[in-house]
Amino acid sequence: MIGPKDVEAAWRLIKPYIRRTPSIELVAGSLGFAGPLALKLESLQVSGSFKGRGAFHKLLSSTVPAAGIIAASGGNHGAAAAYAARTLGHRAEIFVPTIASPAKVARLKAYGAVVHQVGAVYAEARAASETRAAETGALMVAAYDDPGVFVGAGSVALEFAEQAAFDTLLVAVGGGGLIAGCAAAIGQGTKIVAVETEGTPTLHAALKAGQPVEVAISGVAADALGASRIGTPNFAVAQKLVRQSVLVTDDAVRAAQRTLWEELRVIAEPAGATGLAALLSGAYVPAPGERVATLVCGANTDLKTFG
Amino acid sequence: MIGPKDVEAAWRLIKPYIRRTPSIELVAGSLGFAGPLALKLESLQVSGSFKGRGAFHKLLSSTVPAAGIIAASGGNHGAAAAYAARTLGHRAEIFVPTIASPAKVARLKAYGAVVHQVGAVYAEARAASETRAAETGALMVAAYDDPGVFVGAGSVALEFAEQAAFDTLLVAVGGGGLIAGCAAAIGQGTKIVAVETEGTPTLHAALKAGQPVEVAISGVAADALGASRIGTPNFAVAQKLVRQSVLVTDDAVRAAQRTLWEELRVIAEPAGATGLAALLSGAYVPAPGERVATLVCGANTDLKTFG
Repeated sequence: MIGPKDVEAAWRLIKPYIRRTPSIELVAGSLGFAGPLALKLESLQVSGSFKGRGAFHKLLSSTVPAAGIIAASGGNHGAAAAYAARTLGHRAEIFVPTIASPAKVARLKAYGAVVHQVGAVYAEARAASETRAAETGALMVAAYDDPGVFVGAGSVALEFAEQAAFDTLLVAVGGGGLIAGCAAAIGQGTKIVAVETEGTPTLHAALKAGQPVEVAISGVAADALGASRIGTPNFAVAQKLVRQSVLVTDDAVRAAQRTLWEELRVIAEPAGATGLAALLSGAYVPAPGERVATLVCGANTDLKTFG
Repeated sequence: MIGPKDVEAAWRLIKPYIRRTPSIELVAGSLGFAGPLALKLESLQVSGSFKGRGAFHKLLSSTVPAAGIIAASGGNHGAAAAYAARTLGHRAEIFVPTIASPAKVARLKAYGAVVHQVGAVYAEARAASETRAAETGALMVAAYDDPGVFVGAGSVALEFAEQAAFDTLLVAVGGGGLIAGCAAAIGQGTKIVAVETEGTPTLHAALKAGQPVEVAISGVAADALGASRIGTPNFAVAQKLVRQSVLVTDDAVRAAQRTLWEELRVIAEPAGATGLAALLSGAYVPAPGERVATLVCGANTDLKTFG
């Protein structure tokens, strides 16, 4: 199974291409949360979310054919794959479901990718991307269910652990790339808590069933956390190392987004505020003295409709 | 004259009440800027701008009467004074000109202050605040022309110098509080460059005249940089330690705001993007190998009308 040494090696490979994103430590009472809190602003990563780490790792550790790369994504992984492909000089075709926000589609195009909007949900866009990859021979860059991707994502946890001291890391879960990477990186010594919205409970349902299962997807975070099934290698890591799984409401996510802006002048998309929502809403209650941390993992949102 | 030891002492006093704001180091080519660049996100400070530092210092180093405090401000200083007063348990009355943005006025009220909107420009609001302070006996907290305020603001430069290595610091100038504090803190060893918009050139005009002079105020940054005259003690520090003064256009400021959002997912108000605007527009061109840094010093803007 992927472990800390693999994540460290991935981090070394991608470091020249990614940002060391800032963290901030807030004293007790900040943002309306009782205890102290460390936040890592991974939303300032290249391409606007943590996905840049995994995309660069996959491309740098693979042989990319002349046909370039293909990715399917609710938006953030597509943006990351397109950004990494452009940076490294490869062609990119990105498949997104029709619910992807106009802002995200515009960014994909700005990064030079060919964009295909196919299907109402992520699974349909993904199926179309696989058909296309079989036709062209392009490298398929999976959004999450590939250790070559999530080992890169895990570097965010190693970096955060260098910046701040914490006992517990709350991580938003979509398809499970970020949490599998973080758990592989630091899950032996740090309590990893999975946070999902009630409308996107892929890991929560899988942990209950003992295996990945299909779930119905809905709600405010569906465009970024809307994988309908947790990735298989991701689940293997998560089942072993994720110590708790909590759900939050869409209202709690929106409230956390507003608080991040009003109290800290930080913009997060719904998925990017989901970890914090578990703390502010009480879905996760730390023990006395427990030092908690979470990732603001993406900010690819449209300011005109924010909040 | 105020020097590094005074700023260090001020920093010690205010540390329990302010945030250690994050910095980020960007590699050459980021944000469309040729060289490497360090940014400090002081926009994440309590009350949404660097002004929290000076306000806390003034209140903590003064005897505050039962009548509380009074401040006049284009908005950010007022917010900071109101925030600090509430935190420390004092009454606050804040005078703002009628051009202050609705978002800023709403925040003042949210911090529990009594808000008076008086006059078209800052100078009128300030005159009204002084009359009121004489009536009530409240402590007048100056926006910038008081060493008891700007010595606190300077702590941002000491903090930044701990986080990143730079030869040159670009600082936006309104009434001169931030730049006087930064120059006092690190101006002996670091090149301090003043940046103002063409519509708010208080320091630029004063340096040319050899003394503070009145200037006409206009443009995109007028609500935060719109002091019509540089503070007297501020000018004494700036004249000695500011090594260069440059002006930028309103368009350059707006472009820098857009770039901060599009490329870094950071929100800045116009004044908060003014330092960066000098680099992106070429108003300040660093020498080969010169390591430059700037402060994103405020983000008290309305997202609905952003950009």
